[in-house]
Amino acid sequence: MKTTKIDSVIQHVREQIKNRSLMPGSRLPSVRSLAARLNLSISTIVEAYERLSAQGLIEAKTGSGYFVAGPLAPLSISEIHPKIDRNIDPLWISRQALEATQNVLKPGCGWLPDDWMPHENIRKAVRKISKANAKILTDYSTPLGLTALRELLSRKILSKGIEATPNQILLTDSGTQAIDLICRYFLKPNDVVLVDDPCYFNFHALLKVHQIQIVGVPYTQTGPDLAAFAQAIKNHNPRLYITNSAIHNPTGAVLTASTAYQILKLVEQSNLIVVEDDIFSDLELHTAPRLAALDGLSRVIHIGSFSKTLSGSVRTGYLATKSEWIEDLTDIKIATCFGGNQLSAEILYAALTDGNYRKYLEELKIRLSKAMDSTINQLAKIGITPWVKPQAGIFLWCKLADHLDSTRIAKTCLEHGVILAPGNAFSQSQNYQNFIRFNVAQSLNPKVFEVLSQAIQLEIEQQKS
Amino acid sequence: MKTTKIDSVIQHVREQIKNRSLMPGSRLPSVRSLAARLNLSISTIVEAYERLSAQGLIEAKTGSGYFVAGPLAPLSISEIHPKIDRNIDPLWISRQALEATQNVLKPGCGWLPDDWMPHENIRKAVRKISKANAKILTDYSTPLGLTALRELLSRKILSKGIEATPNQILLTDSGTQAIDLICRYFLKPNDVVLVDDPCYFNFHALLKVHQIQIVGVPYTQTGPDLAAFAQAIKNHNPRLYITNSAIHNPTGAVLTASTAYQILKLVEQSNLIVVEDDIFSDLELHTAPRLAALDGLSRVIHIGSFSKTLSGSVRTGYLATKSEWIEDLTDIKIATCFGGNQLSAEILYAALTDGNYRKYLEELKIRLSKAMDSTINQLAKIGITPWVKPQAGIFLWCKLADHLDSTRIAKTCLEHGVILAPGNAFSQSQNYQNFIRFNVAQSLNPKVFEVLSQAIQLEIEQQKS
Repeated sequence: MKTTKIDSVIQHVREQIKNRSLMPGSRLPSVRSLAARLNLSISTIVEAYERLSAQGLIEAKTGSGYFVAGPLAPLSISEIHPKIDRNIDPLWISRQALEATQNVLKPGCGWLPDDWMPHENIRKAVRKISKANAKILTDYSTPLGLTALRELLSRKILSKGIEATPNQILLTDSGTQAIDLICRYFLKPNDVVLVDDPCYFNFHALLKVHQIQIVGVPYTQTGPDLAAFAQAIKNHNPRLYITNSAIHNPTGAVLTASTAYQILKLVEQSNLIVVEDDIFSDLELHTAPRLAALDGLSRVIHIGSFSKTLSGSVRTGYLATKSEWIEDLTDIKIATCFGGNQLSAEILYAALTDGNYRKYLEELKIRLSKAMDSTINQLAKIGITPWVKPQAGIFLWCKLADHLDSTRIAKTCLEHGVILAPGNAFSQSQNYQNFIRFNVAQSLNPKVFEVLSQAIQLEIEQQKS
Repeated sequence: MKTTKIDSVIQHVREQIKNRSLMPGSRLPSVRSLAARLNLSISTIVEAYERLSAQGLIEAKTGSGYFVAGPLAPLSISEIHPKIDRNIDPLWISRQALEATQNVLKPGCGWLPDDWMPHENIRKAVRKISKANAKILTDYSTPLGLTALRELLSRKILSKGIEATPNQILLTDSGTQAIDLICRYFLKPNDVVLVDDPCYFNFHALLKVHQIQIVGVPYTQTGPDLAAFAQAIKNHNPRLYITNSAIHNPTGAVLTASTAYQILKLVEQSNLIVVEDDIFSDLELHTAPRLAALDGLSRVIHIGSFSKTLSGSVRTGYLATKSEWIEDLTDIKIATCFGGNQLSAEILYAALTDGNYRKYLEELKIRLSKAMDSTINQLAKIGITPWVKPQAGIFLWCKLADHLDSTRIAKTCLEHGVILAPGNAFSQSQNYQNFIRFNVAQSLNPKVFEVLSQAIQLEIEQQKS
């Protein structure tokens, strides 16, 4: 009740400043006179003025009252709109999707629609932390990060066969940051890194920042192509291989046990270190083999985060690696980012240990499975079939007719409010110009397929003329 | 009430697992039988089992009940203790201070004691966000970060004379990360960067990660030594100059207007870009000149964060720069860290716009000023005088007698539970072996000076023998 009154005073003053009834530098009405005029208590006006001061809009001058701060910074900004003419580079989809307004459909984006996310789970966790002891709210975290969360992660990855003590786990601000730290530790400019072709597009963007030579290894329905992998090692002496385990992005394929075994044998005979990004771990229906499990964290570093299944807003990722490397990686983290986000770690721990998270995951997997079927059906109607039918996860990787250019089609769709993820954004070889990745949870609106179908028609007509 | 009962069941089961009454793989009592045995409701047992499952300690198998997960990861870990024999490198103080246990005194650390921090302010902000709309809790942030916070920062830095629209401000996870992004954008290995000598030690650690040649410019009581600065430009053609504006770390000195003007004239005739880290901004008593204000963000990039005055746990920093650079810096942020921490940004915005923050700052400045006087007095008693008496802030930079080695003294003090910050940890030239930086807020316990005095005595005796 009182808050509403304070807000109304704030609004009143803001408007007067905005429409220049109160000019920069001019004196505000005294607390007493404004209270009398608006028929509100003095304390309400004082609190409103204090908040306006905190917002930098007005200034208190001791003994002489409150003044409009000046000169005035812009009160409102024009929102950044997606840049339609921007070239489709690896960062294109990230920025399109991150910048998209509410009315845009996003089958090309890499995360769940916000109404699929476990808000109440996070809300409960945030409320719990609001009652936590004071140190949690204001202290820097320890170098490795929240012990309880690392203990939980240690048990969690053990269920996938990966043995790491909590002291072998380093919390990071995101899965991406975990990979970035590893790149900083192992790579120097012009080193060679292997990635899957296609792979998560942000691997390209990240490696570009490191000025690394990227070599793509074709990804098959059972994992990387073994002959090509062996050849790439022989030809390029690469330092790292970065991949998704379990549910591969963008293809939705799953690494089989025998391919995993063969890959590790090749790795052992080389200088390679493997980074296994397990970000979709919690969406698995059956446990796929993990390279880090087979290898015992000897040459494989395991990465994960909860951005996809818990919250993209509460950022926390992690890496698990052997003891020899953990201290150096921690030093790099401190040097480049200082403390970790302790509050986020506490919130995630509370959310993950709430029994509801498991129930939510079970329901989510069923919901995704239905969305997968529905997307496959809708695509079939316009003549598009998936490259592989994924066992689980959110992505469907589809091939259009050979002569179609999905980048051009994506541009047309963007003009009609649909953000697609064209194949070559994921590809080092640029051999996937007729592929598209669909996020099945973002593809439930029939408009996605109408716009897509029209864009394909337009493309065919333009090719004819 | 109910929570306590659930917790007691969880505790009961955990203990049975720990003392091996329940072996890995074995079946837990049925919900019904355990409820009867403990005289609790079935729903209490179900909830406890669900949470234990979420924690990875037990597993549900459909139709056959709950089983102890196995094999078992360690249930507890040995805490990481400060490593007493670690060499004093730039990261030494960071890790010592971040890893320190409760019983250690930390006059060498870079932040306020946790009971000085505005917990209730943060607690209120966290509680407010727990009621926020769902998207805030689970969505990724936009590329630049929370608009309302950028608008606030735009007004805030304007009060120091720096003009930047909200679209020229990029939120980062920390002030350190902001500098890191700038290094990634402008530097390649073996480039030369100027820093103050002495300077914030983490600048050295960060630049080491970038494989940069660091050149120190002696810092005087009015700012960097102008002749040395000019000479360094001439000899090394440096790309960046990284400095603290307003309240300099570690010296507590303040850049004067005339030095600021001369520095900018030298910068204009060179290839230099200046990074001005304004992290102690909110502790100022009088507004010192900002390089970014004089220069109009043409060649100066302005950095800040609220780690020191609001919370080290809720991480958010920012940079303000000209429009031409903001998009590329944002791309690097997305590539290396993906989304920003939206939840932290919301919490900080709520805390900063609460009228209480201003009151807290006023009280904090008075408290710090008293602690400054007290530390100066205590040090005078053991014959130590400050290099300059700071106008404000938390640091006091002191010179011991010429022949004393503060690194050795710091090692002795560490053995007695006092973490000091020896001068050479801040210095490129290593010319500050007889200096120590004191955090006045962490120096109120007389034990600090007792231990220090004894360590100095020991050092003198050892030099005699």
